[in-house]
Amino acid sequence: MLTVLDLIGIAAFAASGALAAVRARLDLFGVIVLALTTALGGGTIRDVLLGVHPPAALVNWPYLAVAGGTGLVVFWFHPTVSKLRRSVLLLDAVGLGVFVTAGTSTALALGSPPYAACLVGMTTGIGGGALRDVLLREIPLVLRREIYAVAALGGAVIVAVGDWLGFPEGLVTLTGSVLIAGVRILALWRKWNAPIARKLDHPET
Amino acid sequence: MLTVLDLIGIAAFAASGALAAVRARLDLFGVIVLALTTALGGGTIRDVLLGVHPPAALVNWPYLAVAGGTGLVVFWFHPTVSKLRRSVLLLDAVGLGVFVTAGTSTALALGSPPYAACLVGMTTGIGGGALRDVLLREIPLVLRREIYAVAALGGAVIVAVGDWLGFPEGLVTLTGSVLIAGVRILALWRKWNAPIARKLDHPET
Amino acid sequence: MLTVLDLIGIAAFAASGALAAVRARLDLFGVIVLALTTALGGGTIRDVLLGVHPPAALVNWPYLAVAGGTGLVVFWFHPTVSKLRRSVLLLDAVGLGVFVTAGTSTALALGSPPYAACLVGMTTGIGGGALRDVLLREIPLVLRREIYAVAALGGAVIVAVGDWLGFPEGLVTLTGSVLIAGVRILALWRKWNAPIARKLDHPET
Repeated sequence: MLTVLDLIGIAAFAASGALAAVRARLDLFGVIVLALTTALGGGTIRDVLLGVHPPAALVNWPYLAVAGGTGLVVFWFHPTVSKLRRSVLLLDAVGLGVFVTAGTSTALALGSPPYAACLVGMTTGIGGGALRDVLLREIPLVLRREIYAVAALGGAVIVAVGDWLGFPEGLVTLTGSVLIAGVRILALWRKWNAPIARKLDHPET
Repeated sequence: MLTVLDLIGIAAFAASGALAAVRARLDLFGVIVLALTTALGGGTIRDVLLGVHPPAALVNWPYLAVAGGTGLVVFWFHPTVSKLRRSVLLLDAVGLGVFVTAGTSTALALGSPPYAACLVGMTTGIGGGALRDVLLREIPLVLRREIYAVAALGGAVIVAVGDWLGFPEGLVTLTGSVLIAGVRILALWRKWNAPIARKLDHPET
Repeated sequence: MLTVLDLIGIAAFAASGALAAVRARLDLFGVIVLALTTALGGGTIRDVLLGVHPPAALVNWPYLAVAGGTGLVVFWFHPTVSKLRRSVLLLDAVGLGVFVTAGTSTALALGSPPYAACLVGMTTGIGGGALRDVLLREIPLVLRREIYAVAALGGAVIVAVGDWLGFPEGLVTLTGSVLIAGVRILALWRKWNAPIARKLDHPET
């Protein structure tokens, strides 16, 4: 069950990376590299931070196959995938939920204190998208818009608190995932954004 | 004592990250993520290179609290913080000194050869600022201006040589820190810059 | 023999990093940092992924000396080095071959499954150039042009398959390196490019 959700999330993240790469006019292999990086980058950063060698994302071939395959599909059928943008965003919300909660759980299981586990979980969820944007020379979207990082943080906190209260891991992870996906979908639907600081009167260089 | 200096450095680095994020129009959570990344990114890179898992920056909650809190303060009071730019730069010089020397010491203590320890120490000092600039789509300032990297390198070399000569670690670290901070403050005050290569006559693509 | 090729590759990668830095108007130390990052970044990413601490690139002083020295030479003599652009590209092809095959071998020796070893080897070869371009605010060239990533992948696959068939490592590594260098040189000479996706009719934001 969780593995299926995992693969759905990987496909959605890979699609977002591959679409962005197609728009940036990367070649076929650049598109596949971006699909792999966006889908597996967050988990790889998590494993590097926690000392899991080699990173799980590299040794699980179904993950690689789904991410690379999605990249190929997007390369050939990107006009169709672009039209499915709304569905990709929905699946991306599911992926964010699964990645953040799995990242937080893994960190807790490896002995991180709860606040560190939340940060690691958040990084797992937003790291891939941040890598995608940095490679394509954009300021990471997740830092600018639409309640992305804060939804991730909220779900991570739920997992950490639930674990501390001794609730079963499956229940806690599911609750966190649903919350993250729900907040993201609501934010997309109602066009919620996190606040931005007041304009500078006298901007400096 | 060193912990206090550490926290001062973290606050100064977090303020520089948060100010840059406010100017780039990131939202509240983007500002906090940039504050955390700038303040704790260098130490995290150091720990990932040296195999310290999970990175100290993630498991020391006072570091997280100071960095995140500074981000919040800058978000709300950034016009005031902008006016204190000069003080932030002074504190940043102190932070650079503390981070570089602490990074070099840690690497030596974990068995790195002296030249590797210098590189690790330099990376500890300039890594956070480099991450900040890459995330905000700038060429890292530390590579372009004002004797930043070279001050860091100089201090790291002092720590490595002092350690090799058997001087007590506290003394060596303090000397290195003071040197780095002093050079940086002098460079800011006298507008010193490292040399730039001669212009290309026939620049190629 | 392999060490000599290794050092040639490091010098070529360092030269490409330093030339790019000179063009971006970085100062002397920025040029040297870019030379080190481009030459040693791929190997460092490999070691971080595989859990080799501290990374070999940091503890092998000949690597550091060659990379830093090349940076210095380029800083002072960059008009001459620019004219040697063709030779630098040839040496870069050799470097790519050596880095990718050595990275794949290392990953296999440390117990990674073959497909993971291929990805690690490819990352070893293209990681340094990608870091260079990200630091200089470019979309990584290796993802956009001239059969770079795919030559790397092809060589990595040869090493993995050869290892699986039980051929001696030296032979396999040499074959892979020659293939990568050959494909790259042919691609440069015949101006081969990987395919790019069809244009979007209605590009979205």
